[in-house]
Amino acid sequence: MVAVFEVEERMHKQQKPDPENLGFGRFFTDYMFSMDYSQEEGWHNKKIIPYQEISMSPASQVLHYGQAVFEGLKAYKTKDGVQLFRPDQNFKRMNKSCERLEMPQIDVEEMVQALKQLVTLEEEWIPGGAGQSLYIRPIIFANEPFLGVRPAISYKFLILLSPVGAYYGGGQLSPTKIYVEDEYVRAVRGGVGFAKAAGNYAASLIAQSRAEKLGYDQVLWLDGVEQAYIEEVGSMNIFFVINNKLVTPELNGSILPGITRKSILELAEHLGYEVEERRIGIQEVVDSAKNGSLTEVFGAGTAVVISPVGEIKYKEEVLTIGDGNTGKITEELYNAYTSIQNGSKEDPFGWCISVE
Amino acid sequence: MVAVFEVEERMHKQQKPDPENLGFGRFFTDYMFSMDYSQEEGWHNKKIIPYQEISMSPASQVLHYGQAVFEGLKAYKTKDGVQLFRPDQNFKRMNKSCERLEMPQIDVEEMVQALKQLVTLEEEWIPGGAGQSLYIRPIIFANEPFLGVRPAISYKFLILLSPVGAYYGGGQLSPTKIYVEDEYVRAVRGGVGFAKAAGNYAASLIAQSRAEKLGYDQVLWLDGVEQAYIEEVGSMNIFFVINNKLVTPELNGSILPGITRKSILELAEHLGYEVEERRIGIQEVVDSAKNGSLTEVFGAGTAVVISPVGEIKYKEEVLTIGDGNTGKITEELYNAYTSIQNGSKEDPFGWCISVE
Repeated sequence: MVAVFEVEERMHKQQKPDPENLGFGRFFTDYMFSMDYSQEEGWHNKKIIPYQEISMSPASQVLHYGQAVFEGLKAYKTKDGVQLFRPDQNFKRMNKSCERLEMPQIDVEEMVQALKQLVTLEEEWIPGGAGQSLYIRPIIFANEPFLGVRPAISYKFLILLSPVGAYYGGGQLSPTKIYVEDEYVRAVRGGVGFAKAAGNYAASLIAQSRAEKLGYDQVLWLDGVEQAYIEEVGSMNIFFVINNKLVTPELNGSILPGITRKSILELAEHLGYEVEERRIGIQEVVDSAKNGSLTEVFGAGTAVVISPVGEIKYKEEVLTIGDGNTGKITEELYNAYTSIQNGSKEDPFGWCISVE
Repeated sequence: MVAVFEVEERMHKQQKPDPENLGFGRFFTDYMFSMDYSQEEGWHNKKIIPYQEISMSPASQVLHYGQAVFEGLKAYKTKDGVQLFRPDQNFKRMNKSCERLEMPQIDVEEMVQALKQLVTLEEEWIPGGAGQSLYIRPIIFANEPFLGVRPAISYKFLILLSPVGAYYGGGQLSPTKIYVEDEYVRAVRGGVGFAKAAGNYAASLIAQSRAEKLGYDQVLWLDGVEQAYIEEVGSMNIFFVINNKLVTPELNGSILPGITRKSILELAEHLGYEVEERRIGIQEVVDSAKNGSLTEVFGAGTAVVISPVGEIKYKEEVLTIGDGNTGKITEELYNAYTSIQNGSKEDPFGWCISVE
């Protein structure tokens, strides 16, 4: 591939971490992509630089007013090289997040190019073990030193790379337990729920802590208006298998439009499953778990990929999903999906982009 | 007063800005208070240091997940010295914000002490003109370099000082026009509306831009559930004079519990007005403006102090409040309130704290 962006070489390379103890988002590679935005110049100063501390004013708006959005995607080591999974989708969504938060747009094609060059440079950092990948974290944040409440006029964009193992400690395809939060609210229509806005995550932590204290792995959020309809789980969208049909909440402005969500819907249809995007009441989940028509539940997101749900707690109800283990359809989708991502099976969708 | 915290001297002092062109939040004094939090040491490294750029990891959680809260209060130059307005209230509210965002608590007494020492050191920076003051901005943000979504284990606390003029360009007590936002939502019960969380402000910008495009100064937010009840204005709480009674929305979890709001309620009662905190429908505002029982509207917040509202637009309705000018009760409250703050009248409430 053609190297388009200047690379500022670093003198000393870091020692690479033990691939068996990567965890998630703890280690970062030797380089990052960086660019700056100003009203006069637009995005400029585009280059690959050593991963390093950044200097910012204590009055930088991101610290005070939270103008910050991010993305998450992955690069995989395949038998033929390295591939990225739908990177254009992430940068397009990033533009939607930016639009909502009154932040400047990026050039999607150019950022895919920058990402390819960065990942090529850092190829040695991509772990090749099962469930392992190179997690890619683009961010944009406001760095104008000004305390007036209005959109900032200067921003920084970075792409960080982090070699990762499985997101949950339990490893892939070990069923998780989720807690339905009926007091705290993540998002409401008219708000920023559909955006990967930094503030959404800070607001979610208190419910996550409560779930953990009660022995659950993740929070299942309900809608902000009626607190009666399923929205999403902490770090993933959610799917239900009801009467052998794959059902997931429709995009309503307060749910994150997951790229894994969208891909799973396409994959499931391709595999012959009926899929449905619609409003799903928590009461329907309770009733269909009890009458046996709800047989499988799983979450889907870039970080977790596909994560089966074995138990759901809602108020006084504790629902075991199926027999509490990973369901057949969940497993089939997981195998088909990860085989495309890691290049062990052909990609009939054109999702994977080779970096070389 | 006793200097408790170490001061790291700076070599070169900055030139002070022209007091007639301060604006808001644009200039910062020579020093700031700084402390760090770690799980092992709690808050430590407490000292007054030169105002300077800070160094942070690009993986710092504040940039990704928005764990950041702030406060705003003011110091005033009086004939007898310098006074702070209810600083304990701000640090107490900061702790409430921290609690909601799973951030560590601060020691209120200690932070009042730190603030007094800092303001004493920077006394020469406090402008003494009408409507001028020293704006004080405490912030806390997560700075752990980790991409897992969970509460950070390290934080930074800073107090910045900024000499300011009037918040609105038009100057104090010139009536503003506000636009009732009926699509975008600021906050919902169960969310973080009551906290001074950074993310709340980023989420509000798009509506503010729309209001400005339509020729309005600020947004009036409605509740997130029914989009029918008054919440607050962009940078202030809101008050209505209906049948000579001072009415303001009750604290419901999605409204910011303003310290100016609380103080104005106490002051108005002291001056003999009947006050009421309750749910106020936007339809009631429309109806009572039309039938003449709504005679005055004003906003109240630390940055703006008291800001009269001359016009409200809601859908197709454009309401002129009273004769469109500053109302009598608004003016009386403004004069009484600012006289206490700037020390020209006695403070019967014990709100003002001398820094010497």
